[in-house]
Amino acid sequence: MKLENALKLLREVPDFPRPGVVFRDLTPVLADPDALRAVVDALQDDIHPDTQVVAAIESRGFLLGAPLGYGWRYGVVPLRKPGKLPSVADREPYELEYGTAELELPSEAIRPGQHVVIVDDVLATGGTAEAACTLVERAGAIVTGVSVVLEITALGGRERLAGRNVSALLAV
Amino acid sequence: MKLENALKLLREVPDFPRPGVVFRDLTPVLADPDALRAVVDALQDDIHPDTQVVAAIESRGFLLGAPLGYGWRYGVVPLRKPGKLPSVADREPYELEYGTAELELPSEAIRPGQHVVIVDDVLATGGTAEAACTLVERAGAIVTGVSVVLEITALGGRERLAGRNVSALLAV
Repeated sequence: MKLENALKLLREVPDFPRPGVVFRDLTPVLADPDALRAVVDALQDDIHPDTQVVAAIESRGFLLGAPLGYGWRYGVVPLRKPGKLPSVADREPYELEYGTAELELPSEAIRPGQHVVIVDDVLATGGTAEAACTLVERAGAIVTGVSVVLEITALGGRERLAGRNVSALLAV
Repeated sequence: MKLENALKLLREVPDFPRPGVVFRDLTPVLADPDALRAVVDALQDDIHPDTQVVAAIESRGFLLGAPLGYGWRYGVVPLRKPGKLPSVADREPYELEYGTAELELPSEAIRPGQHVVIVDDVLATGGTAEAACTLVERAGAIVTGVSVVLEITALGGRERLAGRNVSALLAV
């Protein structure tokens, strides 16, 4: 399946998770084996060849990062919400619209000098991706890029991640 | 990598998430590309050939179910915790040690008559897997099996899922 046809399966859901927001639902893409294949392969096309590890952001990033790891033999490191990991190497807060959240990096998962791509479904304000980059870089590793399916350009995530390679399959 | 060597990477963490429990941490397996490959391929070996869809339980099930879908062209359907899905077809409660939780099935993700395997990292009491089976069957689909990396036999999950095909790479 061509990527453009796979991306047509993204379902627009108005007023989720709150009024005025149009949520782009990846579910129909995942449920179609050919669309899933097309999207994961397109993400891979933009990943820097030095990359050794996929850092996947909980939890929709897991659905994209794990197939990348499986398909192209990257190590997969889940960046998780607090309280999920039995052993935490580091944590980093990021801002939500109201309040803050945190991402946690598991122990012994990333080694200094490794080349790591950050993977998630959507780039919005870039707060989560920035926290992910910070965790990876503070572990002594190199961020080769931030790869997402969908970039919401009006929210300025790309500017926030300035200096990193940001790759999106679709920008709205 | 041989499966037995991949499974040796499972890390035992005593007293997580509470005293007296030994948590088996999948993180080192995921972080090793060859181990990830071995585990996902071994899961695939036990999946019934009629299977068309992987229903992956949030969120560690995503890390295993999505590569299965990518590698063998199954549709991937995430079964999610409440509040994450923009459009919910059905929900089913399950018991936790204290209180209850719920799993949600996304809209239009599973069609009647489809053959579906449930995928998660661990089978413990079987409460979550049973709720997953209920959601899939109530949608008119057929559960071809429940596939996990690790089965904790003392907790009786296999008995609870009686009548379904339960497959585990490792039983402790």
